[in-house]
Amino acid sequence: MTGYGSAFEKWRAAAPDWNAYTRHAFVAGLQDGSLPRDAFLHYLKQDYIFLMHFSRAWGLAIAKAATLAEMQSACATVHALLHHEMALHTEICAAAGIDKDTLEATVERAENMAYTRFVLEAGYSGDFLDLLAALAPCVLGYGEIGARLASSGYSDTYSDWIGTYGGDEYQEVCKETGQLIENALRHRLGAEYTLSPRFSQLGETFAKATTLEVGFWDMGLDP
Amino acid sequence: MTGYGSAFEKWRAAAPDWNAYTRHAFVAGLQDGSLPRDAFLHYLKQDYIFLMHFSRAWGLAIAKAATLAEMQSACATVHALLHHEMALHTEICAAAGIDKDTLEATVERAENMAYTRFVLEAGYSGDFLDLLAALAPCVLGYGEIGARLASSGYSDTYSDWIGTYGGDEYQEVCKETGQLIENALRHRLGAEYTLSPRFSQLGETFAKATTLEVGFWDMGLDP
Amino acid sequence: MTGYGSAFEKWRAAAPDWNAYTRHAFVAGLQDGSLPRDAFLHYLKQDYIFLMHFSRAWGLAIAKAATLAEMQSACATVHALLHHEMALHTEICAAAGIDKDTLEATVERAENMAYTRFVLEAGYSGDFLDLLAALAPCVLGYGEIGARLASSGYSDTYSDWIGTYGGDEYQEVCKETGQLIENALRHRLGAEYTLSPRFSQLGETFAKATTLEVGFWDMGLDP
Amino acid sequence: MTGYGSAFEKWRAAAPDWNAYTRHAFVAGLQDGSLPRDAFLHYLKQDYIFLMHFSRAWGLAIAKAATLAEMQSACATVHALLHHEMALHTEICAAAGIDKDTLEATVERAENMAYTRFVLEAGYSGDFLDLLAALAPCVLGYGEIGARLASSGYSDTYSDWIGTYGGDEYQEVCKETGQLIENALRHRLGAEYTLSPRFSQLGETFAKATTLEVGFWDMGLDP
Repeated sequence: MTGYGSAFEKWRAAAPDWNAYTRHAFVAGLQDGSLPRDAFLHYLKQDYIFLMHFSRAWGLAIAKAATLAEMQSACATVHALLHHEMALHTEICAAAGIDKDTLEATVERAENMAYTRFVLEAGYSGDFLDLLAALAPCVLGYGEIGARLASSGYSDTYSDWIGTYGGDEYQEVCKETGQLIENALRHRLGAEYTLSPRFSQLGETFAKATTLEVGFWDMGLDP
Repeated sequence: MTGYGSAFEKWRAAAPDWNAYTRHAFVAGLQDGSLPRDAFLHYLKQDYIFLMHFSRAWGLAIAKAATLAEMQSACATVHALLHHEMALHTEICAAAGIDKDTLEATVERAENMAYTRFVLEAGYSGDFLDLLAALAPCVLGYGEIGARLASSGYSDTYSDWIGTYGGDEYQEVCKETGQLIENALRHRLGAEYTLSPRFSQLGETFAKATTLEVGFWDMGLDP
Repeated sequence: MTGYGSAFEKWRAAAPDWNAYTRHAFVAGLQDGSLPRDAFLHYLKQDYIFLMHFSRAWGLAIAKAATLAEMQSACATVHALLHHEMALHTEICAAAGIDKDTLEATVERAENMAYTRFVLEAGYSGDFLDLLAALAPCVLGYGEIGARLASSGYSDTYSDWIGTYGGDEYQEVCKETGQLIENALRHRLGAEYTLSPRFSQLGETFAKATTLEVGFWDMGLDP
Repeated sequence: MTGYGSAFEKWRAAAPDWNAYTRHAFVAGLQDGSLPRDAFLHYLKQDYIFLMHFSRAWGLAIAKAATLAEMQSACATVHALLHHEMALHTEICAAAGIDKDTLEATVERAENMAYTRFVLEAGYSGDFLDLLAALAPCVLGYGEIGARLASSGYSDTYSDWIGTYGGDEYQEVCKETGQLIENALRHRLGAEYTLSPRFSQLGETFAKATTLEVGFWDMGLDP
């Protein structure tokens, strides 16, 4: 039980690549510290570009929201991403010897484009729910990975990363996002939302996004 | 019973302005021939601009479709609009003394922008169903008006207009559009689609588009 | 000279309805206090719905931005709208005897839909520049109106409204938005952006949005 | 000289992966017949899904067009894709022993998602030009490959494929698409469009789409 809500539990159980994503070799390497430094820095640089597009997707969520509460929730996320996470990311990279110019000169990898554009396109072509289903594997998957690693033994090497995603603050974000998803589903499809064909169609979007997350980790191992 | 499907019947019954739209003074003027020529020509010019945006909305429907059948249906409509209706419209206008340059120099009226942008925005912000719900009052409302006028007594003055929308070809388009809506609802919300909150939310979009259609007729009477 | 930038100055000079908008009877009524209370409260209620869609449009701007600076600028605006302006608006309405339920039960008027959907649709169908050109008449027009009224004599009756839009804080927002527009134009069309056909096409979008602002004031006078 | 227009020539020359795409091992295997049958059938199945999303992108182009001519051009393409190409594709697959059910049960590969979603997202987030720049590498790249192979010696094995893309009909489509791009650029950026920063920004979109085309061929070789 992740505590991120019942819709997530169901989509997650139906996504064939969920374990391939959350228990990827890259993740194992973060845990035991065996991930080469080179790969981690390469991942950080790609993740900077990723966060830009991810923020754009949450901006789109504001445009696609139906209620003030949905808008405020999406806005809080995009604000945290653009005004805190991006700055934090720049700091971490600086500490790792990647200056801002290097960061901004990073060439976006195909696996990065694949995932971010999939999310944005799902949102543009579909509605608020489609967008949330595409965003969920990233937000909640990182939460699940972080929580699992934080509660197991782990090496010091990447403990900052584990501390961030396994920490209370990020876990709270995951709970709120899970709640946003639950409420959005109920608002549109009713309390029995799992019975709607829409629910399994959204699950397919979730599953595809999960597959593309596997590709992102694969890329991480291939600097 | 219009024969345009059960979803339409329900949305129509719940739209406060449905009669204000389909039994508007402009429509009565088309029927008994009392509509001033001036108003009709003004309407035709605005309708030319309307058809451009309406075609764009059906183009968007192709992008938002989930199945090949949905895509082909939307494509057939946009093809008919752009390669036949627009040409027909230009001919009718020419016969009425409005040449192509005049037609293209027409300044779009606020009521025209209001309706067309509402439809497109509903489609962009929502999904395929939201777009169809916004398009339905126009496609099917014209069908209902045309059928009613064609089966009542009417003046010769605007018999071409009545013949077009009351005729077999356009009635067939309405039946197909009604079927497209039914199938799209079932595909996403299941056979019991009327029980989903989504269905009444779509009905609100339908009702707002209907209100904006009233504004379009109002504009027609105000050259 | 408004101080909101050179692109705004040019678009404004080319918009036929700019004076009809900024010197509307509704505005004159705010200045001399002759605007009926009834009309003002009606305007406030519609403006609440307007702000929701306006926030959605700025959310879309985040999705359509090309640089981190553009994203942060749009995000700051949407955050201020959703977390401060909306709350402020609710307070003003409460003070005027309109409780939250009444506010949320407000039926959106056609003129309101017309303007907000036009802005959103311009953004969806076009790019970041198209969206900014559609947003500008509202943001900067209110700034111009506020500044003019604040620097002239005015009645106490609506001095809060005048103080808000004529005040330093809102004037600063206008200067920043003007700068965002200038930078966005230069980034895409170069320093000589006024020579690009795009610039006058954007001016047409600005002019249409201005016309729809006139409709919004008209609605304000018709509770 | 491809004859597909000057904008294409320039974007093509600036895309680092253009040769990696048009002279890919998959293409060489089509020419000399060494491409394993297995890989070709796998490619055909993925291409069926690709064509669905590609048609959606051309549908979006109708929504994003600014003139009737642009709309009609985009509509002709999507109509040809949905009512002729898809049927043709189904026939070719049937002849190759892939029935319709198998075709529709194909699981979309990540490389396929990557390219198609990139194109759609570029179109949604940008304007008509951004969409065309993302679509161009596919439409015109296949034309260039087809023309080169058709004018060189080639094996009988995949002569149907070469005949299709190297044939007069498809070459005519490429010339028209090239003209659509030229006209769209001139309409928005003027005759000196290459001097606008927009032109090189569009070239970056073209280059990224080209890189994702390389991924599509890579996938073709990995059934």
